Amino acid sequence: MTHQSRTVLLAGGVGGARLGHGLQAHLGDRLTVVVNTGDDLERHGLLVSPDHDTVMYTLAGIDNPDWGWGIEGETFAAAEMLERYGEEGWFRLGDRDLATHIVRTARVRAGERLTAVCLDLQRALGVRAAILPMTDAPVRTEVLTEDGWLEFQEYFVHRHQAPTVSDLRFSGIDAAAATPEVVEAVAASELLVIAPSNPFVSVRPILAVTGIEAAIQAARARAVPVVAVSGIVGGKAIKGPADRMLVSLGHESSALGVARLYTGVADVFVLDAVDEALAPAVEALGLRTVVTDTIMADDAGRARLASAVLAATSLG
Amino acid sequence: MTHQSRTVLLAGGVGGARLGHGLQAHLGDRLTVVVNTGDDLERHGLLVSPDHDTVMYTLAGIDNPDWGWGIEGETFAAAEMLERYGEEGWFRLGDRDLATHIVRTARVRAGERLTAVCLDLQRALGVRAAILPMTDAPVRTEVLTEDGWLEFQEYFVHRHQAPTVSDLRFSGIDAAAATPEVVEAVAASELLVIAPSNPFVSVRPILAVTGIEAAIQAARARAVPVVAVSGIVGGKAIKGPADRMLVSLGHESSALGVARLYTGVADVFVLDAVDEALAPAVEALGLRTVVTDTIMADDAGRARLASAVLAATSLG
Repeated sequence: MTHQSRTVLLAGGVGGARLGHGLQAHLGDRLTVVVNTGDDLERHGLLVSPDHDTVMYTLAGIDNPDWGWGIEGETFAAAEMLERYGEEGWFRLGDRDLATHIVRTARVRAGERLTAVCLDLQRALGVRAAILPMTDAPVRTEVLTEDGWLEFQEYFVHRHQAPTVSDLRFSGIDAAAATPEVVEAVAASELLVIAPSNPFVSVRPILAVTGIEAAIQAARARAVPVVAVSGIVGGKAIKGPADRMLVSLGHESSALGVARLYTGVADVFVLDAVDEALAPAVEALGLRTVVTDTIMADDAGRARLASAVLAATSLG
Repeated sequence: MTHQSRTVLLAGGVGGARLGHGLQAHLGDRLTVVVNTGDDLERHGLLVSPDHDTVMYTLAGIDNPDWGWGIEGETFAAAEMLERYGEEGWFRLGDRDLATHIVRTARVRAGERLTAVCLDLQRALGVRAAILPMTDAPVRTEVLTEDGWLEFQEYFVHRHQAPTVSDLRFSGIDAAAATPEVVEAVAASELLVIAPSNPFVSVRPILAVTGIEAAIQAARARAVPVVAVSGIVGGKAIKGPADRMLVSLGHESSALGVARLYTGVADVFVLDAVDEALAPAVEALGLRTVVTDTIMADDAGRARLASAVLAATSLG
């Protein structure tokens, strides 16, 4: 395993974007990111793909580092006008960001595949890696709460992740197949990485797409290692509701709890130095462990974690 | 005829918007503007309705007075991003303006009538008059040039009205019917006004919609006067290619040339003081004439011309 291995990263939003940015610094176009599209939604008649766009903007170097979404220097003139027209304002889209949704929507409506459109958008922004939607078919994550089934962004953004999640489903998943691009990227990979993203609503939808877990298992059968990075550090999610979801869905809110979810799919588990004491229990699950600083506070932190991930399989 | 007569204005873009603004100052919600939709187009998958929006922004008091289109203080962050994505940039849409097209497109795609959506947009912006699309059906003006048939905005914006126009057609017009709102407004009117808009590409499409000219003739039969205002002053169009079109389509580029086009539909013709010498020839066509300053350089100019139009039928 070298630092130039063809690598496929399974990613959700911010955590995936940051690790992807670090990996791209090492790998350039030898990196393929497979992004969750279960968070996608239609707003104002436009197809919005939050995880893809967060990864794209981050890998293009135009992300807003303070927000964890959107574009640096973004303006909201259109959003203000949309609100004046009575459109709901809880999911605000910036002016530049709107252009992304407008182009995507127009081209998908005209019959193009989502994957082809996304790759064009990425090229226009100078992204070196390829960022592939997990599927071209519409999949929508929904969470069961005390208020009933909620669309993901209704729960995540509108209700600020306040409701307790007792179950999940991925609407449309039965009709969703892996794209040729995803299958080929996994087949050509020398390393597979699971980002420190939410295991339930970022990683699980990707694995649930018909053909993706099979492709990963085929890669593992030819000795391609799968390295998963914990998004839980010191028992807390770095960002988002993963820690609360672990508990409400019957798991332990710890790196060990995450590791248990990845047995059978991962070979190596990367956990933060603060969780070093959990390493033996993770190893007992049959996962090799790498203990390192997993916090990606800046570009250097992203590249450092990426290095650790790329080196992980040569340490065992 | 009083200054409070229920009035219907047939309008294209800037000239119609300015006279509409002046009339609204006198009439408030007793004014209905019927706007041309032959200039409509789809850009980036969004339905853009330039004449409606110019009239709406002007009557809402948020128009950009220097451009003759768009919104004062407009920004173009989305347009720059759209161009970065490789979208054609010759028809640039501002950020606030984009919100209008996004809402219109989403609601029409969801099955609402264009008229209903437009009325909602106007209400949100505080417009007192009603601005009615001439029809809910898609109509697209095309011009025949030495380069063949061109869509209107391709000719008007992209090619800067440089090609010579030898013929016109209104694609979709056979399937376009007057809306109940237009028919009712004309039926309830006490005064009908034809704005100083382009007679060929602004006014003629409106009159060509099935049911509109019949409604106007029915109003005339009950003695409702039709007042047309010349958009040609001193032989030149105040704005746009009407003067060149008059010549290339075999007419005279003068207020008299315009008046000839309105015989049979108008009763009174308003021409500018610089064209006073043409008044007898216009009268000889069977039209009564009003000679006044027709240039609407500012709000006072708009209100003054509106006053002259409202008073026109009491002067005969």
